[in-house]
Amino acid sequence: MLAVLVNGVECVNPAQAISVADRGLNYGDGLFETMRLQRGRVKLLDAHLARLALGCGRLGIDYPGDELLRREIAHMCSVADAGILKLVLTRGVGSRGYRPNDNVAPTRILSLHASVPVANAGIRVRWCDMRLSRNSQLAGIKHLNRIEQVLAQNEWRDPAIEEGLMLDSEGELVCATAANVFIVRGHELATSDLRYCGVRGVLRGEVIRLAGTLGIAVHEEPLWPEDLETASEVFITNAVRGIRSVIELDGRRWPAGSVTDSLRSALEADA
Amino acid sequence: MLAVLVNGVECVNPAQAISVADRGLNYGDGLFETMRLQRGRVKLLDAHLARLALGCGRLGIDYPGDELLRREIAHMCSVADAGILKLVLTRGVGSRGYRPNDNVAPTRILSLHASVPVANAGIRVRWCDMRLSRNSQLAGIKHLNRIEQVLAQNEWRDPAIEEGLMLDSEGELVCATAANVFIVRGHELATSDLRYCGVRGVLRGEVIRLAGTLGIAVHEEPLWPEDLETASEVFITNAVRGIRSVIELDGRRWPAGSVTDSLRSALEADA
Repeated sequence: MLAVLVNGVECVNPAQAISVADRGLNYGDGLFETMRLQRGRVKLLDAHLARLALGCGRLGIDYPGDELLRREIAHMCSVADAGILKLVLTRGVGSRGYRPNDNVAPTRILSLHASVPVANAGIRVRWCDMRLSRNSQLAGIKHLNRIEQVLAQNEWRDPAIEEGLMLDSEGELVCATAANVFIVRGHELATSDLRYCGVRGVLRGEVIRLAGTLGIAVHEEPLWPEDLETASEVFITNAVRGIRSVIELDGRRWPAGSVTDSLRSALEADA
Repeated sequence: MLAVLVNGVECVNPAQAISVADRGLNYGDGLFETMRLQRGRVKLLDAHLARLALGCGRLGIDYPGDELLRREIAHMCSVADAGILKLVLTRGVGSRGYRPNDNVAPTRILSLHASVPVANAGIRVRWCDMRLSRNSQLAGIKHLNRIEQVLAQNEWRDPAIEEGLMLDSEGELVCATAANVFIVRGHELATSDLRYCGVRGVLRGEVIRLAGTLGIAVHEEPLWPEDLETASEVFITNAVRGIRSVIELDGRRWPAGSVTDSLRSALEADA
C-alpha cells in the first residue's frame, strides 16, 4: 500500500489502525469501492460514489457525503498519478452483538495500491463450483460479505485462467468473481439483471451507457449458461481492469470480436 | 471490553489493533465464536473449538490448533471469573483482491466482555422481513458474513421483543437472528436441519445431546412457519443466553412448558 487514510487521518502504521470492535471486521458490516486512478484522476468517480451511497441506504449506514469523500480522494490523488484506490466504509465501531448501535460514525478507510497492468488481450475463464446465494435486499451493492467470491477465487491457481464465472444457487449465470459478464448476440448486448445477487459494476453501467451512444441495444435479463452457446462474443467488465474479451471457457472459444472492440474504443476515447 | 488479546499479545489499544489489510475486515473472510465464561470456565469449550475447526476446513483457513487456542482462552479466564468471551479468527492480512495469499497466518482476536444477565423468563419474538440466503457450502459454520443478521436485528427496537425469527429465501423457518429454534410436538423435538443456511449452534448441539439422555427424540428437518401452529412449546437456544421459552409471536401464545423446563434443568445440572 502506497498510502492509507483512516477517517481522514494519514495512517502511520496501517498494520495497527482498525478497532477490534469495528463492525466491518466483526460482521462484514459495510461497503467498498475499488477505483482506478489514472493521470491523477479517479475514473468514473461519480458512479462509484453513487453506488456507495445506494449501498449505505440499503444497509442503513450514514453516507459520509460526496464533499468529504471527494476531498479525501483528492488527497490520495496527490500521492500518486496512477494506481488503484480502495475505499472501505464500515458501519463503524460498535458494541458486541448484531444490532447496530445508534449514532455510530462510519469508519472510512482509503488505501492506494500500485497499478495493475491493463491489457487488452483476450482471456481464458473457467466455471466456479462456488455458487452465489440469492438475497434481493443485498443484490447489486458492493457490501463486505464476500466469502463466496473469496472461495470462488481460491478454486484455481493456474495463471493462464484469468477469471471464473459464477452461477447462483438456482443455476443462473450472474457474473465473474470480480467482474460483470456481457454476451453479444448479433449486434445486441445482454447482461445479468442482478436481481438476486451480484454487484452492479461501475464499468458495467458505463458500458451500458456507451452502448446507447453507439446504437447497440442492451438487455438486462436473467442469463443462463446456455446463453453462452449462442453468443458471438463474450466479455467481462471491471472498473480496474477494463473490458476484457473472453476467448475461451472449457474448450469453447469465441473471437475477440468487433462489438467488444467498438465498446473498448468508445471507453478509451471517453477517458 | 475487559481485555483483548490479538495473536496472543495483550492489546494496549484495542481501538488501533487490526491491519487495514486484514481479510476479516475487507471480505468478512473468517469465523467467530461467542462463548460464556462462568465460574472461571468457558462453557462447552470443546464444542466451540470443534465448530471453529470445522469452519476453518470449509473456508480453507489454517486452524491454529486446540493447544494454542486453549492457552490463550485460559489466559482470558484468568482476567475475570464470568463474562462473554469472543474469538474472531480471520484468514489474516493479505494483499488486495479476493484470492487468498498463500501461507497467510490467520489473525486471532480474543475479547472479554461483561456478562449479560441470564434470565429464564419466557420471551416475545417477531418475524423478521430480512431473509437468509441459501448456500450449502457456508451453512452451519459461524463465518463473519453477517449482514443479514445485522439488518434483521435492525428491524426493531422494542425492548419487549427479545428476538426475531428468520425464514430463508424459500420460506423455510431457519433460526432466530442469534439463536437456534426448537419446537416441541408431543414429547418430541424438532429443529431446522440447517442444510442451506443458519449456524449450527453449540447450545443447539448440547440440547440435542441432553434430549437423548432424557429419552426425548429430536428431528432435524426442514421447518416451516406452519410448524409453529402445531407446536406445544417453542424455545430458542444461544450459548450465551441459554434456553429461552418463546411465549408469544404476533399474538400467538405458547406456554413455557414442561419439556423445555426439563431440558433447562438438565443443562443446569450439567453445568
